[in-house]
Amino acid sequence: MEHNLQHTISLLTRTPVTLNALLRDLPEGWTLRNEGESTWSAFDVVGHLIHAERTDWMSRARTVLQFGETKAFEPFDRGGHAREIQGKSLAQLLDEFSRLRSENLGELRALNLRQEDLERRGRHPAFGAVTLSELLATWAVHDLTHLHQISRIMAYQYREAVGPWSVYLGVLQCTGHSSSS
Amino acid sequence: MEHNLQHTISLLTRTPVTLNALLRDLPEGWTLRNEGESTWSAFDVVGHLIHAERTDWMSRARTVLQFGETKAFEPFDRGGHAREIQGKSLAQLLDEFSRLRSENLGELRALNLRQEDLERRGRHPAFGAVTLSELLATWAVHDLTHLHQISRIMAYQYREAVGPWSVYLGVLQCTGHSSSS
Repeated sequence: MEHNLQHTISLLTRTPVTLNALLRDLPEGWTLRNEGESTWSAFDVVGHLIHAERTDWMSRARTVLQFGETKAFEPFDRGGHAREIQGKSLAQLLDEFSRLRSENLGELRALNLRQEDLERRGRHPAFGAVTLSELLATWAVHDLTHLHQISRIMAYQYREAVGPWSVYLGVLQCTGHSSSS
Repeated sequence: MEHNLQHTISLLTRTPVTLNALLRDLPEGWTLRNEGESTWSAFDVVGHLIHAERTDWMSRARTVLQFGETKAFEPFDRGGHAREIQGKSLAQLLDEFSRLRSENLGELRALNLRQEDLERRGRHPAFGAVTLSELLATWAVHDLTHLHQISRIMAYQYREAVGPWSVYLGVLQCTGHSSSS
């Protein structure tokens, strides 16, 4: 389907509640383990979502609206979540993500974007010209890519516990990984 | 990690709440579309989870405890959700899944399974000998495989809307699929 701003906002609104329902007070065996060296735990992923909320989406949207293609976006720091997670509990990260998302969606709604705004172009440091519509659609799919990743990370912890059923469980065969955004 | 019954129950308890947070009242553009011919929408997946709740997990657990390896499990009908979803709304399916899961977890807890019970073997129609522990771990990972699938199905709806960002979004590269269970 084509990008629809209301559909995007509907999804973006639900992600903090969904992660809260899935992860809060879950045993740390699920939330703090990763998929091996240099991979992320569910805890790390929430830190990454916070970092993106702070530095990526609305910051880039403002850059498009103010500067168009004349100013490239700041590159996103994929390791930037290290600062976000230091000394925090998962409950604190979930609260922080929820708060930042709510603020960002408030700001997005207040922009009252029209179709011609969504077609405005900005400049991505690697891709070149991108539209505001593509940026906002990516915000939503970025949520989904990390929900997908969290379900995969958690399933990985039981990859041996399921015995022969592993061949039937698609999540244990997934090789889709996320890069920087 | 090894199978841990309390960890399994913690996860199984959260899935209905998580799906409710993600899917209830979401625009149908997200919930009723699939990934192309003969694939499932998020709505279909919830129907499948209901069908598994009715016919698979606790039914098989009872078979292990009552008959051991002398009686093979009934094969699971992967198309069985067709009856579950007919004429229903997504809200009705979410309510039904939540109710059945709650009943099944009540029954599971009431069994007061000890380690020696978890090591008991049953007979899977395709795999042969499996343990009760493997069955219960699979119940949890089956939830995760379908959360993973739902996030992929939803992301697919915006595969073009994200423009060049598609190469960075792991969920759009996922080829992990679920088979029958």
